[in-house]
Amino acid sequence: MNRHDTPSAVPSSNADLVDIPGGREELDTPCLLVDLPVFKQNIERAAQMVADTGKAFTPHLKAHKTPDIAEMQCAASAAGFCVASIGEAEVFAKYGDTPLTITSATVTGRQMARIAALSKQVSELTVVVDTPPNIRALANLDATVSVLIDIDMGRGRSACTEEAQAVHLAREIMGAPNLNLAGLQCYAGQLSHMNDFHDREEQAAASDRRAGAFLAAVGSIADGPLRCSGGSTGASMFDLASSALTDLQWGSYALMDVEYGLVQATPDGNPLPFEPALRVATRVISAGHETHVITDAGDKRFANKYGAAPRVASPNRYLGAEFRPVSDEHGELKGSPLLRLGEILEVIPPHCDPTVNLFDALHVVDGDRLVDIWSIAARGVY
Amino acid sequence: MNRHDTPSAVPSSNADLVDIPGGREELDTPCLLVDLPVFKQNIERAAQMVADTGKAFTPHLKAHKTPDIAEMQCAASAAGFCVASIGEAEVFAKYGDTPLTITSATVTGRQMARIAALSKQVSELTVVVDTPPNIRALANLDATVSVLIDIDMGRGRSACTEEAQAVHLAREIMGAPNLNLAGLQCYAGQLSHMNDFHDREEQAAASDRRAGAFLAAVGSIADGPLRCSGGSTGASMFDLASSALTDLQWGSYALMDVEYGLVQATPDGNPLPFEPALRVATRVISAGHETHVITDAGDKRFANKYGAAPRVASPNRYLGAEFRPVSDEHGELKGSPLLRLGEILEVIPPHCDPTVNLFDALHVVDGDRLVDIWSIAARGVY
Repeated sequence: MNRHDTPSAVPSSNADLVDIPGGREELDTPCLLVDLPVFKQNIERAAQMVADTGKAFTPHLKAHKTPDIAEMQCAASAAGFCVASIGEAEVFAKYGDTPLTITSATVTGRQMARIAALSKQVSELTVVVDTPPNIRALANLDATVSVLIDIDMGRGRSACTEEAQAVHLAREIMGAPNLNLAGLQCYAGQLSHMNDFHDREEQAAASDRRAGAFLAAVGSIADGPLRCSGGSTGASMFDLASSALTDLQWGSYALMDVEYGLVQATPDGNPLPFEPALRVATRVISAGHETHVITDAGDKRFANKYGAAPRVASPNRYLGAEFRPVSDEHGELKGSPLLRLGEILEVIPPHCDPTVNLFDALHVVDGDRLVDIWSIAARGVY
Repeated sequence: MNRHDTPSAVPSSNADLVDIPGGREELDTPCLLVDLPVFKQNIERAAQMVADTGKAFTPHLKAHKTPDIAEMQCAASAAGFCVASIGEAEVFAKYGDTPLTITSATVTGRQMARIAALSKQVSELTVVVDTPPNIRALANLDATVSVLIDIDMGRGRSACTEEAQAVHLAREIMGAPNLNLAGLQCYAGQLSHMNDFHDREEQAAASDRRAGAFLAAVGSIADGPLRCSGGSTGASMFDLASSALTDLQWGSYALMDVEYGLVQATPDGNPLPFEPALRVATRVISAGHETHVITDAGDKRFANKYGAAPRVASPNRYLGAEFRPVSDEHGELKGSPLLRLGEILEVIPPHCDPTVNLFDALHVVDGDRLVDIWSIAARGVY
């Protein structure tokens, strides 16, 4: 990743506030912030956690869609990246030659043309397949592509549910001169937001056994060692000890959110070792009520899958209080002492990935300053 | 609005498919579609409905954020537009000189500077206020601005809850040489998704009485006739007969969605006279299951406030079936006969405004063709 290739024209009316003392309080809102010291600590912790395991760290870029963050992940420890779509791969391929894995199946002729073009831009491009038609389409490409077989880990997303199917797919891949059988994708996404430690421990063990069985079956006919790509921020503490996983796809750990904060990472219920770095900044625009204030960020600024409310991170007197979007455009904060008209509120969003997906820029803050603005360059692509 | 000023570089990998026979089936997905004949019918119906009432039609642009649509609304009947933020106003001001009303209060010095600049770009700029500090900030501007007093219609969004407060605010506005007291904003947003006809009829009558009482109170000290801006697609059938409303802010009527389809517009439960024109196009990327297929659009492509599921609009054999996002990136359609791998699905989203907010472009389709691509130019601004 090359920082200097990032877009210079970042879409933010706040660009004039960079490096101005007190700029954090002056921001035009609603806008998305990343608290730099917390964020850096998350990046470093993940690198340390993975370092001694012998596993490859391949963060999922769908979580942040931001080339500046990918560059920092690369500098810390990433051996490559995962992306959700060809469009995301196309954006990140512009910023440097890092191995990329597209984690969803690709099926159309137009997609094949884009994959062929991409494979000439990056030194290693990997895609997933779950049925023979995926493989036949790839086998016709005038391009060399690595392939992971996508295994159904219990969510019904992939159609490869039996070891015999995986072996059959592996033989087809090995029979195509332009395809390289790289291994398996064993992504047990259901673990990610299973908050109870013991439930997750049991399911993680079952996933590990299942991944191991598929690896053994496909490994018995493969020419060399196989990758096994998977894992998630929510399951990170189990992923480290997994006997099957070789590549860890964690994504949300760098930014975190309210929902990941509810995940129990230890038997006595401690949270994950990552802290919330992402905030939506919103401002009080109506303060004449006795019971509440109204702010300028509603449902269009907060994605919410599991029903958790955003939580106030600042000002301190409201730390941890629930903030509620009350319409598409407005939010409400109850309680006293009431906030003042014009006061800025920083709120930790319920779910980081789809909230980042609502904004064009990440405003990087440190202390009372706005220190940089990063383009969420892969937002909206497909 | 001037069509030729719209951005030429529309962000879509589908640009090469415009006017190609069968292009609608070939689209790179997930992408957002507008069905042109249905959309035009909605635009025409709204114009006809409002034409004989003597009311001004001032559609809310937050619903679609798309200059090409604003241009068509203007050509059909719009006397001006509403926008949710200064950023939206700045985008639409580039495309022509149409009166603009910013429907949320503005409070900071940075916002005042932007309002002053905007007021020099458009011949009539209107903003709302709900407390004296809003007015004092505006009164210091070196710019002429029209002002609506934002009345709390029951949601607690505005802090102007008593007639005496409104009269006090009106006197302050009239005392500021650069401010023009234009009237009231009486937006009863709670009516919009109250599906039962009789509940809504009762509440609409109460809202109309309340707006009338505020209008009479402020009118008693005002120099001329007052605007009363409000109304919504969900309450449109009541808005037409309102004795208080002079300006109708309908927005979603042009695109429609699953949730507006549930609103009862007549005593015998008939729906609104607008039909769903908006669709998310998504493609089957895993078809090896016996019970369901997986597609390439999940929660990042569907905003959902009230829990309704997206509904299939095409292919016909699945017409009206529920489609469910099952993760941030993937959706699931159950039922037989199963769709084929690569088949395209067009799905009516639950809630149009915040779904449009997730995309950069509207793909305009008519029959089997993609006929144009419109930039959702005000997406993401603030």
